[in-house]
Amino acid sequence: MNEKVIGIIGGMGPEATANLFMKIIKATKVDKEQEHFRIIIDSNPKIPDRTKAILENGESPVNAILDTAKNLEKAGVDLACIPCITAHYFFDEIQSQVSYKIINALEELNLYLKNNYSNIKNIGVLATTGTIKANLFKKYLSDFNIIYPDEHTQSNKVMEAIYGEAGIKKGNIDKENLDLLVESSRELIDNGAELIIGGCTEITLVLKSHNISKPLIDPMDVVAQSIVK
Amino acid sequence: MNEKVIGIIGGMGPEATANLFMKIIKATKVDKEQEHFRIIIDSNPKIPDRTKAILENGESPVNAILDTAKNLEKAGVDLACIPCITAHYFFDEIQSQVSYKIINALEELNLYLKNNYSNIKNIGVLATTGTIKANLFKKYLSDFNIIYPDEHTQSNKVMEAIYGEAGIKKGNIDKENLDLLVESSRELIDNGAELIIGGCTEITLVLKSHNISKPLIDPMDVVAQSIVK
Repeated sequence: MNEKVIGIIGGMGPEATANLFMKIIKATKVDKEQEHFRIIIDSNPKIPDRTKAILENGESPVNAILDTAKNLEKAGVDLACIPCITAHYFFDEIQSQVSYKIINALEELNLYLKNNYSNIKNIGVLATTGTIKANLFKKYLSDFNIIYPDEHTQSNKVMEAIYGEAGIKKGNIDKENLDLLVESSRELIDNGAELIIGGCTEITLVLKSHNISKPLIDPMDVVAQSIVK
Repeated sequence: MNEKVIGIIGGMGPEATANLFMKIIKATKVDKEQEHFRIIIDSNPKIPDRTKAILENGESPVNAILDTAKNLEKAGVDLACIPCITAHYFFDEIQSQVSYKIINALEELNLYLKNNYSNIKNIGVLATTGTIKANLFKKYLSDFNIIYPDEHTQSNKVMEAIYGEAGIKKGNIDKENLDLLVESSRELIDNGAELIIGGCTEITLVLKSHNISKPLIDPMDVVAQSIVK
């Protein structure tokens, strides 16, 4: 029971990694400790920033992600996941070079939405500008109409909350960043979004379902449920 | 900066492992994600129960802990820790068979108490019966007077909260288990304890400082601080 060894290709960022780890544990129903999955995590925050690589031609994170992914291969994982949506830009390149299956968070999210929100068309997405410019949500959620914040909100609110001087990536899980994300969500809802995706693993460290008036979906919840199944 | 690779020999239990992971992240001051430590975790809940091994001559956990510890060695950790106090009964056996340093939570706790609570003599400990019978706290905190709950409280409250039908090891982080631990702490304080140690990593998943009238020390906070230093 629950004999598969799960890997987490982590560190992008570390809190999001710890958060996914806890989500998998909580999603696993057990009668005793020994029934939990064995989970092997390489939380490697030294991986170069994904957004910078996509937007500014910064250092590619692929070699460092592969080094991390191969460490998990050596450690014997049967399947793995990547708690960083922006990193999914490099997904095929990574998957092709390891022998175990990597669960694609965006594919899982698409299936989940089709199965559970088939009546919804307009989806608001809060994500990094890297993820947006790379068209990741439009590629994987191709049957939905994806709504992003306008450019000003995207850089002054969403990116500020994630990467700013007092941003979530610096460990600030506070009210200021929550306010920025709530305001951004409101703009998406005003523009027709029937549902909001926390499309960067840092966002749902701060923004919670009860903060907004439409459903909030965290792709990492979907990944945790898929893994446990 | 923060270049060492930290290992966590985990899974005993998984929540306590995720909790220590988060404590290390939060204890690390960074200006950007890349300054965090690389942390490699093998959360292996298949390791046989430590308390059973000590008290009931159950299957020894040593081989499984060593398998986990050696997995981290292969993955390249520089130092590691074990977020399970009862497992420290087997500490010397484990340390002698891996090449990296394992931080001993009980040694670190002893140093921390001597440096920060030198005026205190009587220490109340909430721990598994395995830890108590193995004399772990008396061995490592030899300059202090260690107070345990009476036998009835130990089995019907402390062990019930950790291992019971609705215990913390089954994922129940709820008010019932908190009440059991608060009552046990009160008994220790009534018997002269000037400070309480959450001497099993499951306990401080539920019992928090504000729940009791004397200082509550979580050895995993001490370990996280030592690692970051």
